[in-house]
Amino acid sequence: MITVSEIKAAQSRIGNVIPATPLLENPFINELAGRRVLIKAECLQPTGSFKIRGGWSAISALSETDRKRGVIAYSSGNHAQGVALAAKRLGVSAKILMPADSPEIKIKNTRKLGAEVVLFDRATEDRDDVALRENPNGERVLIKPFDNEFVIAGQGTVGLEIAEQIKTRDVDQADVLVCCGGGGLTSGVALALEALAPHLKVRPVEPTGFDDVIRSLKSGKIEENDRTAGSLCDAVLTKSPGNITFPIMQRLCHTGIVVTEEEALRAMVIAWERARIVVEPGGAIALAAALFHPNAHDKETVIAIASGGNVDQIIFEDALRKFGGKS
Amino acid sequence: MITVSEIKAAQSRIGNVIPATPLLENPFINELAGRRVLIKAECLQPTGSFKIRGGWSAISALSETDRKRGVIAYSSGNHAQGVALAAKRLGVSAKILMPADSPEIKIKNTRKLGAEVVLFDRATEDRDDVALRENPNGERVLIKPFDNEFVIAGQGTVGLEIAEQIKTRDVDQADVLVCCGGGGLTSGVALALEALAPHLKVRPVEPTGFDDVIRSLKSGKIEENDRTAGSLCDAVLTKSPGNITFPIMQRLCHTGIVVTEEEALRAMVIAWERARIVVEPGGAIALAAALFHPNAHDKETVIAIASGGNVDQIIFEDALRKFGGKS
Repeated sequence: MITVSEIKAAQSRIGNVIPATPLLENPFINELAGRRVLIKAECLQPTGSFKIRGGWSAISALSETDRKRGVIAYSSGNHAQGVALAAKRLGVSAKILMPADSPEIKIKNTRKLGAEVVLFDRATEDRDDVALRENPNGERVLIKPFDNEFVIAGQGTVGLEIAEQIKTRDVDQADVLVCCGGGGLTSGVALALEALAPHLKVRPVEPTGFDDVIRSLKSGKIEENDRTAGSLCDAVLTKSPGNITFPIMQRLCHTGIVVTEEEALRAMVIAWERARIVVEPGGAIALAAALFHPNAHDKETVIAIASGGNVDQIIFEDALRKFGGKS
Repeated sequence: MITVSEIKAAQSRIGNVIPATPLLENPFINELAGRRVLIKAECLQPTGSFKIRGGWSAISALSETDRKRGVIAYSSGNHAQGVALAAKRLGVSAKILMPADSPEIKIKNTRKLGAEVVLFDRATEDRDDVALRENPNGERVLIKPFDNEFVIAGQGTVGLEIAEQIKTRDVDQADVLVCCGGGGLTSGVALALEALAPHLKVRPVEPTGFDDVIRSLKSGKIEENDRTAGSLCDAVLTKSPGNITFPIMQRLCHTGIVVTEEEALRAMVIAWERARIVVEPGGAIALAAALFHPNAHDKETVIAIASGGNVDQIIFEDALRKFGGKS
């Protein structure tokens, strides 16, 4: 079972390799949202997303024998880069299976970080079959993107930082909005805050059509999305919450918020214009919930996690053209 | 005379109003530069530039009587926003004189922050005449953009943060590259580092055609630029170093680096693509020096201050189209 002790242990393994990200505040964004918005800028991580935390946590926890086996992971890109960089720095071989329709920048970066990338067609090939083919004898250690206790503990270090950072920021109560895919970040943050800042309410945010976690929390059992592609919010498109993450979220999370893809793109542009950070559509959904769903929040302050910033240039340029200059 | 004590005093006045900005590191940028590059991301300040530090430092140091008089400032935009936000939060009236050709976003933001903005034509009107007209009896306290000891002490808090942050980042020696206009930031940072991290070398960076500080440091006397407009690097276009800033830079700064406007724009795009921060052309010149002038550095590590991020959308879009996707 994961508790705040495992999260603190992950933090001590991560050490100074991954410095704390800032909790940004901006008067213009506060005005647009009609309340105080603190943005936890995980897009500023060396690989452009929080996933380096989980990747580092999991690989650094491997035994010497397991490190020699190497690791394998599947990911549309952010977990891929997190695992690749952690593996490289820790001297571990990494093979990453990526859907061929992943954003180009994510594939390019994962390769640049020294991992062997194997592309597959997610419409015609099953991910597990590809994994079996690429790792036939289970030689490499599989680092799952969210349903792995070390990964969850790593993502939970975001929560430790939030609990520390709000001490000097005059935050009493707040909703913590988390961009949610399989729930690794959401459950990790919820566990950390349960122990260290129980007055904060953790709430998952998902894009329309991919609200598996929010529906699962409502029905009390794991629900699935019809599809796992077809949105620009690629970072958060998972089939369903994990067997490990779901019970944690069920116990600790409050009602989720669903945002549209257009809201995500508009939030991405406002983050560029006002907070001067680059977020990808899937990494902008928590900010979108803060900006465009004012009635969904109980508290005067919201903390929005900007989970990643790996966006293809063409998507970004389109959004800037459509939604820029309006805030 | 300003020493590190005045800078520490400014830091204690600034307190938690302006949290420390991060010192970002990115494997892709390191690779492009061929050395370790740490980016001090001042573009993440609430007003999008380091200028809030100096503005807050100066206005918070005013007596109650002077606060009631209100303040006046002239600026093409970043100092304007810094003074406007500090004045608003501290309950002081602010009037700001801005050249009519300042970036639109800077004029708009300064107004949004509650300051009274007076535009003037810098080709036909003298800034001091406008100031005299707008503040005929010297009613308001003038907050100069750089030649003011409290402003310099405020900007110097960037140096205090760098000295603290490198302690856990395994930095032994480094060149500190500073985007340099009139020298407020450069001299403040140099004073802080002289006291707290004397092994770091502070070096001003200026755009081609506006290298007044670098020429002044060479000749040993204050030199002027022919013009103070005509570059996209508007944030750093000053006529000459200040009477207070120049002797400090003369005593403490090492050789400067001149970069082209195109290098600034390319660095702006790389900062977007790789560091996920938004910098303006003038705020990107230190990073440009790190990326495109590899032979100008003595040290294996450079710290580049990304001083501001208030860029007009059209300039940004143009640069993205021209230089994007190449790193």
